[in-house]
Amino acid sequence: MVMLDSLKNLLPQKVSTAPTDLETHGKDESYPVRHPPLAVVFAESLTDIQTTLAWAREHHLPVIPFGAGTSIEGHVIPQGRAISLDVSRMNRVLEVRPQDFMAVVEPGLTRKALNEALKGTGLFFPVDPGADASLGGMAATNASGTTTVRYGGMRHNVLALQVVLANGQVLELGRGVRKTSAGYNLKDLFIGSEGTLGIITRLFLKLHPIPEHIHTLRVFFDDLSDTAQAAYAVMASGMPVARLELVDEVGIRAINHYLGRSYPEKPALFVEFHSSTKEALEAESSMALGLMQETGAISIDTARTQEERTAQWEARHQAYWALVNLFPGKEYLSTDTAVPISRMPDLVEYSSRLLREMGLTGNILGHVGDGNFHTLVVCEPGDPRAEVFSERLVEHTLALGGTCTGEHGVGLRKKKYLSKEHGPALDWMRQIKQLFDPQNLLNPGKIFD
Amino acid sequence: MVMLDSLKNLLPQKVSTAPTDLETHGKDESYPVRHPPLAVVFAESLTDIQTTLAWAREHHLPVIPFGAGTSIEGHVIPQGRAISLDVSRMNRVLEVRPQDFMAVVEPGLTRKALNEALKGTGLFFPVDPGADASLGGMAATNASGTTTVRYGGMRHNVLALQVVLANGQVLELGRGVRKTSAGYNLKDLFIGSEGTLGIITRLFLKLHPIPEHIHTLRVFFDDLSDTAQAAYAVMASGMPVARLELVDEVGIRAINHYLGRSYPEKPALFVEFHSSTKEALEAESSMALGLMQETGAISIDTARTQEERTAQWEARHQAYWALVNLFPGKEYLSTDTAVPISRMPDLVEYSSRLLREMGLTGNILGHVGDGNFHTLVVCEPGDPRAEVFSERLVEHTLALGGTCTGEHGVGLRKKKYLSKEHGPALDWMRQIKQLFDPQNLLNPGKIFD
Repeated sequence: MVMLDSLKNLLPQKVSTAPTDLETHGKDESYPVRHPPLAVVFAESLTDIQTTLAWAREHHLPVIPFGAGTSIEGHVIPQGRAISLDVSRMNRVLEVRPQDFMAVVEPGLTRKALNEALKGTGLFFPVDPGADASLGGMAATNASGTTTVRYGGMRHNVLALQVVLANGQVLELGRGVRKTSAGYNLKDLFIGSEGTLGIITRLFLKLHPIPEHIHTLRVFFDDLSDTAQAAYAVMASGMPVARLELVDEVGIRAINHYLGRSYPEKPALFVEFHSSTKEALEAESSMALGLMQETGAISIDTARTQEERTAQWEARHQAYWALVNLFPGKEYLSTDTAVPISRMPDLVEYSSRLLREMGLTGNILGHVGDGNFHTLVVCEPGDPRAEVFSERLVEHTLALGGTCTGEHGVGLRKKKYLSKEHGPALDWMRQIKQLFDPQNLLNPGKIFD
Repeated sequence: MVMLDSLKNLLPQKVSTAPTDLETHGKDESYPVRHPPLAVVFAESLTDIQTTLAWAREHHLPVIPFGAGTSIEGHVIPQGRAISLDVSRMNRVLEVRPQDFMAVVEPGLTRKALNEALKGTGLFFPVDPGADASLGGMAATNASGTTTVRYGGMRHNVLALQVVLANGQVLELGRGVRKTSAGYNLKDLFIGSEGTLGIITRLFLKLHPIPEHIHTLRVFFDDLSDTAQAAYAVMASGMPVARLELVDEVGIRAINHYLGRSYPEKPALFVEFHSSTKEALEAESSMALGLMQETGAISIDTARTQEERTAQWEARHQAYWALVNLFPGKEYLSTDTAVPISRMPDLVEYSSRLLREMGLTGNILGHVGDGNFHTLVVCEPGDPRAEVFSERLVEHTLALGGTCTGEHGVGLRKKKYLSKEHGPALDWMRQIKQLFDPQNLLNPGKIFD
């Protein structure tokens, strides 16, 4: 294509139209539709991004920022002719300032690579969405994970951003400080904007001290309802739990099968406490255990070594792939509802009943300490029931005061729920999009139609 | 004025042009300029606010939201002909949901009244800017306070907002959940927008368990530099301190004089630890004390009872008024700089030296655990040096990567710093203002000219 030649001339060695690149940039980890971009730009600098955007403006071709491709809502999939702007080569740690609990990084760096680079500093970056996502992508979807109940998600852990707008302008949003009241908070507007307002080119991240003392355990229950109630009891006590994850019986079975574990095949809470003192840790975890025993815990396994802890959280993070592995050749839809914590047991119950009533296979797992969990529905490709299930669950979630997505973002799949969730505020979101990107060049068709 | 008669007819018993009302709504707690509004509307409902806005649109008259009038940067002072929209009658607690750690309140409710209403629930709302500010006003300026180092400021503790736009439209921003990734974060855009984007009419607040165990102490040092270094040492250790406030020698002297205390007249840290267990509390506070002793602590006073604790924090909260009382008839300017925590001792030192070099009287106090502190400069009315001091301090702050305002907001006084702090992002803030309020009716002249 002649037009692409001009892009290749502008960015030699950085533009690919190789079929494998187009294929890997036309899909994500779960969304059932695929659509390759016209080309992939492997940007290596801010200037490369500005060059790509200038070219895109001239040719009226949309640009889709791409990090690690680990999203699951279709965020990186073109909706028509588009260029994929891959930032994975922009993966440097630019600065670590342990004395300020801060790191400055490029958007293509992954969370695991950052934590690797932090070794020896006594600090870590806590947000762990499971996949080894890029930090730019995690900011773009306001990602969170198992430790969010204690450390917060991306909005809490990104102090400032550098972004490039559709018009090529570079903005610095926020400052590397713990608090500021200096004007409108554009930083948090761009976090969660899914690449539709600008391209993230630099992140100022908040780091946390690695806890001196950690207590990690798996607590098993006879039924799912008790499990959810126990999680709520822990949260209602105000205990400073660091991780509080629910995995249902199907999930445990899948983990055992996929990873060769021999966990009791019962619904479980995977729990962790972090503390700066041994005494605090023991006091807090024994109080929480007491609460879980009162709400029906039948057995407790403690992870006593670092290896056992790593193994437990690996199992939790692999739970999605474990289930996928259990049902080869199927399609998967993961819901991502979040509700006020007291409503969580109700929603877990509702979700479980709805799976049964609709005769669907699936499992329930997630960040119940935040009121957020995922129901992974397994269907034959093209079976419309997964979508019907999702619609009913979201409807019940919104009625309980919840949100259609706690952490995965809107992408393509949840656009239809936003009008009900936000009412007239949605139209103002559209107007902000129009303000920052009047040509609709940045990731069009995501969040809004 | 005939025009105002039509407003009075629309809102009988709710519109005042009484000189005392105009006077109290034409000033704040510190800004030296006063300018009465044309009238004060005492809104009692969302409808009253919409009625006022419709009238204001028709008459092209600006509207300034007014809560408790406790801001200090000129936020509520008209810049010309304007109506003051007082929401202090909208002060109901609409709902308390202890099981979700949430309360729903009207904007005129003050933080102390909320905590009074929460008695018996075991929960509290932590943000304490000193003054008994309205919660709507606190959200409008993204206020914080002594406990922010542990519990966060308003952005962290407001889950969702209801607002009315200049055009009268009612928006619900955010949901009462712990996390959401559903589209653009308008909630945090409105928090800190200082009444320039919309009128806050309802707040969904996050509550916290009252800590079971509290340890409160005052630690004294020989000089200011040691005090700042000790505060940084505590923060750098990653200790979960709940309050970490610096009060300099002048501040202590003023407190002793104003409140009849007999604290040692030395620079001090006022410190507090919160914990769910006694063991944790003791372990953490003794580690922190060790650090402070290593960095030069010369004496430590412990507040052993609830009364002693209350007295200590009353002293801290009254420190501003204590200094004002020490120098009657003067003018006061309070800076509000915040820097990355490792830069805080440098900035404290700089501020202290600059006061001396300029021959100014003043004191230094504040939330050093957040890298945020205030220098209160005392001058003869009209002395331009206070402003010169502020400019130099902000310039040094920005060079250290900091912000011109950690918690007081921009108002009138800090508009001139925003261009340097935000660069081209400031123009995008202006465009967002233009989008939401094209007639420039809502608190014009604040944040931007």
